[in-house]
Amino acid sequence: MTEFELIDRFTRPAPRAGEGVVLGIGDDAAVLRPPRGEDLVVTVDAVVEGVHFDARFAPADVGWKALAVNLSDLAAMGARPLWALCALTTRRGERPARLAGVGRGLAACARAHGVALVGGNVSRARELSLTVTVAGAVPRGAALTRAGGRPGDLLFVSGRLGEAALGLAPQAPAAARARQRRPAPRLALGLALRGLATACLDVSDGLLQDLGHLCAASGVGARVELARLPGPPARAAARAGQDPLALACGGGEDYELLFSAPPRRAGAVAAAAARAGVAVTHIGALVGGGGVRLLDARGRTHTARARGHDHLR
Amino acid sequence: MTEFELIDRFTRPAPRAGEGVVLGIGDDAAVLRPPRGEDLVVTVDAVVEGVHFDARFAPADVGWKALAVNLSDLAAMGARPLWALCALTTRRGERPARLAGVGRGLAACARAHGVALVGGNVSRARELSLTVTVAGAVPRGAALTRAGGRPGDLLFVSGRLGEAALGLAPQAPAAARARQRRPAPRLALGLALRGLATACLDVSDGLLQDLGHLCAASGVGARVELARLPGPPARAAARAGQDPLALACGGGEDYELLFSAPPRRAGAVAAAAARAGVAVTHIGALVGGGGVRLLDARGRTHTARARGHDHLR
Repeated sequence: MTEFELIDRFTRPAPRAGEGVVLGIGDDAAVLRPPRGEDLVVTVDAVVEGVHFDARFAPADVGWKALAVNLSDLAAMGARPLWALCALTTRRGERPARLAGVGRGLAACARAHGVALVGGNVSRARELSLTVTVAGAVPRGAALTRAGGRPGDLLFVSGRLGEAALGLAPQAPAAARARQRRPAPRLALGLALRGLATACLDVSDGLLQDLGHLCAASGVGARVELARLPGPPARAAARAGQDPLALACGGGEDYELLFSAPPRRAGAVAAAAARAGVAVTHIGALVGGGGVRLLDARGRTHTARARGHDHLR
Repeated sequence: MTEFELIDRFTRPAPRAGEGVVLGIGDDAAVLRPPRGEDLVVTVDAVVEGVHFDARFAPADVGWKALAVNLSDLAAMGARPLWALCALTTRRGERPARLAGVGRGLAACARAHGVALVGGNVSRARELSLTVTVAGAVPRGAALTRAGGRPGDLLFVSGRLGEAALGLAPQAPAAARARQRRPAPRLALGLALRGLATACLDVSDGLLQDLGHLCAASGVGARVELARLPGPPARAAARAGQDPLALACGGGEDYELLFSAPPRRAGAVAAAAARAGVAVTHIGALVGGGGVRLLDARGRTHTARARGHDHLR
């Protein structure tokens, strides 16, 4: 199969037309018409065989996840997704059915979130990988960033933390396995938080590490009440021989939104969460100074060591 | 070094601010303001160690080329470049100096062409690779495509063909080596051809293969006069034991523009080439029907077999 046939076969299952797509895949480049009066929000991320996924992942899960982790970044900025470009690498002699499966997973995630695939590239390499660039739109000046948090703001997180990490354990329950393989980008919540959240990011490297990033960007510290953390199901964690609190604090790959908002907006945050159909939990607050302090159930303070998930380790 | 330190070190040499960059590298995603009344032109391409480059390439050449091949696609669409995002993969234990060199080469190409680096990602893999996504702008509806060629249009190509392929030979002259390692995207020519060229693409896979793409997209055939082809220096090709005509027809990686224009615009094409400071050669014409016919110096016709450059082979 030539490069062109492979690109075509790989990208064919995905929606290739959509809002603003003037000219899609097939020319030297795509031509796109940005929505009037909006800013674009763009990011790139890769999933690599042996690093981000292995034989426990179905091919379609790989394709889904490669796009979903990028859409999670758009969610964290409050953007609605528009377009994606993907660069696939494949080993010589890779099974065509496996590549087709990756393409179908990518397509399923694109369809689920209204994304048009507008660029594709295939190269040989020593492993399968998928690098995805996504672009979304947000009204001018309305993008959520990591930088607007202020002392006194409450700290919230969506969904459950640590469940995706638990999903890698052999005895993990189906829900946790699905969280690891098919993360659900919190796009509706990100949109609902525009004008409410003062700072926002997605939890990809573990709560404490990502909270450290939010604090550094906002120039604040944080206090987290451990008893409030929405961790993975305790019984399932125990069966897998894992500590639920450690999973919740540093498991990584949660793709939940971690955000701050002033106390007076707590009701609006709850309403936004209800509208988006996702649970949001108040887990602490931002404070002056730097550093992240953890309060246990007995009110004792611990200093957080941000030991998160680092794909380079 | 953590992932974050590596991304920062890798992207630091590049310009990270520029036209339309509201929020650059460092948050979950970049925020970009598209130029008013213009379409965006976007594409993605990767260079992989052992496939697109090897130890004969200096690290900085790899970074330069990864961006340049993408900018060449923007040139072919008549777009002016704005932004780039790059995803680097690196082996465990890779020399930091090598990665820094790749970053410097990428930065040099970005500076040379007014591109802001607005996104970066680093992952482990079994080889070094660099996947670059670029975005440029073009006035609405003014993008050049492969599809507008008509029978009777003249066929032109910029620069010299086959010199980049010659540049891989051990005895290649310095100019050919530079063409292979640091291709010059024909951005000024692409801009000058807006409103003139009826179809345009960049020659990355070899003249005949890419001409086949232009013909297929435009629904036409083509006639190429072999004696007109601006091939590599004959003496240098002979020294390297290579056939200049074969290099010109199928060498690949030329990153020259191949385009069509009606005969009445031949003068305007020459003026555009002069303005852009690049040689443009009239090499044939588009014809009705399909297929590419080659006319040799004695007027004999050959049917082209498009045996170009396929990185998957």
